[in-house]
Parts: sequence; structure tokens; C-alpha cells
Amino acid sequence: MTSDVAFRRPRMIRFSDCDPAGIVFYPQYFVMLNGLVEDWVEEGLGIGYRRLVIDRRVGLPTVRLEADFRVVSNMGDRVDLVLEVERMGTRSLTLNLRCEGAAGEVRMGVRQVLVTTSLETHRAIDIPDDLRAAIAQMEEGSAPP
Amino acid sequence: MTSDVAFRRPRMIRFSDCDPAGIVFYPQYFVMLNGLVEDWVEEGLGIGYRRLVIDRRVGLPTVRLEADFRVVSNMGDRVDLVLEVERMGTRSLTLNLRCEGAAGEVRMGVRQVLVTTSLETHRAIDIPDDLRAAIAQMEEGSAPP
Amino acid sequence: MTSDVAFRRPRMIRFSDCDPAGIVFYPQYFVMLNGLVEDWVEEGLGIGYRRLVIDRRVGLPTVRLEADFRVVSNMGDRVDLVLEVERMGTRSLTLNLRCEGAAGEVRMGVRQVLVTTSLETHRAIDIPDDLRAAIAQMEEGSAPP
Amino acid sequence: MTSDVAFRRPRMIRFSDCDPAGIVFYPQYFVMLNGLVEDWVEEGLGIGYRRLVIDRRVGLPTVRLEADFRVVSNMGDRVDLVLEVERMGTRSLTLNLRCEGAAGEVRMGVRQVLVTTSLETHRAIDIPDDLRAAIAQMEEGSAPP
Repeated sequence: MTSDVAFRRPRMIRFSDCDPAGIVFYPQYFVMLNGLVEDWVEEGLGIGYRRLVIDRRVGLPTVRLEADFRVVSNMGDRVDLVLEVERMGTRSLTLNLRCEGAAGEVRMGVRQVLVTTSLETHRAIDIPDDLRAAIAQMEEGSAPP
Repeated sequence: MTSDVAFRRPRMIRFSDCDPAGIVFYPQYFVMLNGLVEDWVEEGLGIGYRRLVIDRRVGLPTVRLEADFRVVSNMGDRVDLVLEVERMGTRSLTLNLRCEGAAGEVRMGVRQVLVTTSLETHRAIDIPDDLRAAIAQMEEGSAPP
Repeated sequence: MTSDVAFRRPRMIRFSDCDPAGIVFYPQYFVMLNGLVEDWVEEGLGIGYRRLVIDRRVGLPTVRLEADFRVVSNMGDRVDLVLEVERMGTRSLTLNLRCEGAAGEVRMGVRQVLVTTSLETHRAIDIPDDLRAAIAQMEEGSAPP
Repeated sequence: MTSDVAFRRPRMIRFSDCDPAGIVFYPQYFVMLNGLVEDWVEEGLGIGYRRLVIDRRVGLPTVRLEADFRVVSNMGDRVDLVLEVERMGTRSLTLNLRCEGAAGEVRMGVRQVLVTTSLETHRAIDIPDDLRAAIAQMEEGSAPP
């Protein structure tokens, strides 16, 4: 399953995102992109993120990531955060996440594998049916007829 | 150049490191490990980190990283943060960084490529001589006679 | 100078804002409100925040704050961040900032005194004329005819 | 109850504590001081902080704080974080917390009121007996014979 369907959100680079070098402190990219995953689950997929995590006690921890940092982002930059689903397994999701500058250039990109877990046991569980269906439907949105 | 010489610092997992799931919020591992690199430059290599970054305007941005998250860390856990130099190039350093639990098990590990840059231009520069010499000397510390 | 003119921005409480107790980690309120001040300078006053801080080297450090935390905020809560100018001095601004819940109840509020400084010397300077004029104009917006 | 007994911990100002102005981003002081309270409960009072918060579900939220920021702290500064108990009520603690520079000068100080709460209900509860006893004993350490 590859996808042309991207979930995209604008973001301004804030003072609090930046370090004494005046550019984004790189761990802060992961905080921003975690927020993007949150928005995607909530708004893109229509699955309540809080309901998922707090009420249903389903976690989405990252088990692996590979990130490339290509171009620095400065305070005040207006960027786009972009999410695409690369692969949906039984208990894991592989996401391609990136930060794009105003000209569409990739500032940084990350390939990230998340697993669905029980927050009671911190063990992997199957992706819940409603989450799976919502992702599949999003993917179909890009399929040729 | 592979190394048996590790730079190691204990760390307690704090309330502020953890998320609503009660475990380390994964971007926070990168904040912790950035602090380890800082301590290594300062205390392990004897190169003033602040002097390097602020006075000499040399940056150490990350250009690539690969991270695996294996075991969760909970609030109050006492862990070790560990740094090893995998490779020193002309303008880049490849570090192996990890967080070990009390039993020595790897909680998470990251292979991280940093480049030395001018903070005036954000362009790569050669690793400064004193930094290079200090790293080489640290590596020799592990060599058999 | 008291004001009925408030600058207001919606904000969702994110996973990354919250602590192991599942509620906003209180220092994170100050990060959120710092972002509100940034948005106010940028969008509310039309003074470029980045231009102010980076190009013109004008800082807006906080010298005093008094905060009350009344009601906890949970992950997923949709809140409003609100800013009002209480007083504009020669070199200082007193702001009333608050976080309101969906029913308009004040979750936390802070009275914060900022001074304008030179980022070269970290000493106080007079509020720049354009900033002063923009704040005065905003305040007049609330004046009776 | 006033106290001459201070709980004190050294701290280096880190790259990640600082903002594009090169000085501590003020919300980060509260993160540092939250860590100090954590260390005080754990090491100063001998009450396990994690046991208190996670196992016993006792929270220590801040309900009010007043902070003064007097002198900026720069990256690489070695400071002391200091805690004193100003008052212990039935359900609340008033702490005086400060960050001191190398010469003993107060960089910033905060008077902070915390309440003990049940993390099930987020309502105030009496200070647990063992916590009260440990604080009282610490205070007596400063009493004249």
C-alpha cells in the first residue's frame, strides 16, 4: 500500500521551538510531528485521539524511526507538516512524515514505525478495527477507480 | 574506527520526561541524549561546549539519525546514557547513543550523524583540530598496547 | 489604561502538553502563553515578531509573573488563550494572560510584566515606537466613541 | 514556620534550556525547579516520588506562584537550585525556590503554593502523614537546641 493521500497542517516555527543557534532544536521536530499524528487521528481519521489513548487505553508508541535533516528552519518560518501512510500491518503503522518549507522543499523527513499497544501492559495489540477501517478508507480516497 | 570507549552518565527519568501514558515521551530521549553530547564535549573531551557553540560559533547539528525504541522507561527509573564514537569523518561524526536500564538492557538506541557547521552560514566546516585531537585521544584510550 | 480588547486564540491541549497525571504540566502553560504573546505581536499588532527579535535584536523577557491555577486541563481539551494589556509603561508591559475552558471558565491566569531589552546588552530599552503605537491603537479600539 | 534549612542541587544550564536569545527560556526554569521538588521529595525527604505519584496516586499540583526574574542565565552557567519550606498547611505547602548563580546571586526566585491532591479526583487531600513528618523533621534540623 502506497499512498498519494497526504494529511497536511501548517505550522509556524515558534520562539520556543528554537535553540541558541536560532534554528529548530531537532527534538522539537518530533514534538511537532507527534502533534501532527494526533491531529491526523482526530481530524483526518475521525477517531478521537483522547478517547483512543485515555478512555480506550490504546497507545501508539514509536518503535523505530529514521530521520534526515536537510535544511534548517528558522524562527518565524511558516512550514507544512505532512503525513503519509506507507504501510499498515497487523499491529504496526509505517508513516512518512515531513516538514516542508514555503517553497515545498523538504526541511526534514522521518520514516516512523508505530505499534498499537495496550497502555495497561505496554504490549502490542492488533490495530483496532475502527482505526484500521478509517486508514483504509483514507487510502482508498487516492485509489484509481 | 570502532571503539570500546564509552562515555556514560547516569540519569533519572523525571516526571517532566513522561507523558500521559506514564512513560518517557520519545522526543524527550533526544533531549536527554543531546545533553549527553554536551557533557561529552565538555567533560569527556575537555572542549568547552559553550565556548565552541557561542564564542567560536561552531554548530553540531544532526543530519541523520536512526533510532530503535525497545523497552519503555518509567518515571523514577535510573538509567545510564551512553555515547560511543562509531566514525569520525572530515566534517562529520557518527555516534552511537543509547539509554540503558539498571540491568544493562538497551531501552533505546540511536545512530546519529552530526556535522560541524559554521553558525554564521549553517554550512559544514571541517571538524576543528582541537575537537578532532580530543576525540582521537579518547579513542586511543581503548587501544591495546 | 485598562482594556476590554482581548487577543484570543484557540488551542487544543496536546499529548505533549500533559504529564503522567494526564493533565497539563504547568510549565507548559507558560510555553503556550509565550506562543500567544508571539502571535499577538505578529498578528494582533502587525509587528513582525521574528523581525523584532532577530533582526532588530529587541527582547521581551519576563521580569515578574503571578499565576493562579484553578482548574486542570486534560489532553484533548479545547481551550482559548487570551491576552489583555493591563498597563504600558516606558520600558515595560503588564499583560493579563489566561487559559479559558470551553464554558469560558478560567483554568489558569497570569499577570506578567515584560520589559523591552536590547539582546546585545540584555538591558532594558524604551518600548520601540512602532510597538507602542500598535498597542495604543489596539487599546483605542475598545474606547467609547 | 520559617526555615534556615535549604535543599540545594547544582545544575548546568544546557543548550536545550536556552532560547534564540541564548538565555534560559523562562518556562524552562519551572521545569528545572519541578525537578528540584522531585529530588527533594525523593532524596531530601526520603519519600519515593514515583511511589507517591504513581503508586499512591498523590499529586502535588501548583495552585499559585509568584516569580521574579532578575538576572539572565546563559548556556553553560553552573547554577544552584535551592528549595526552602516557607509554610506547611493542612493540605498545602508554600515553597521558596530559587536559582542562584556562581556568586550566590539570585537569578530568579519563585514562591510557590502546592496542594496535595488525589490523582483520581484531582481534589485536595490532607498532606499524607509520612510526607508531613519528613518535612517537619527536616525543619527541626534547623531549630536551635
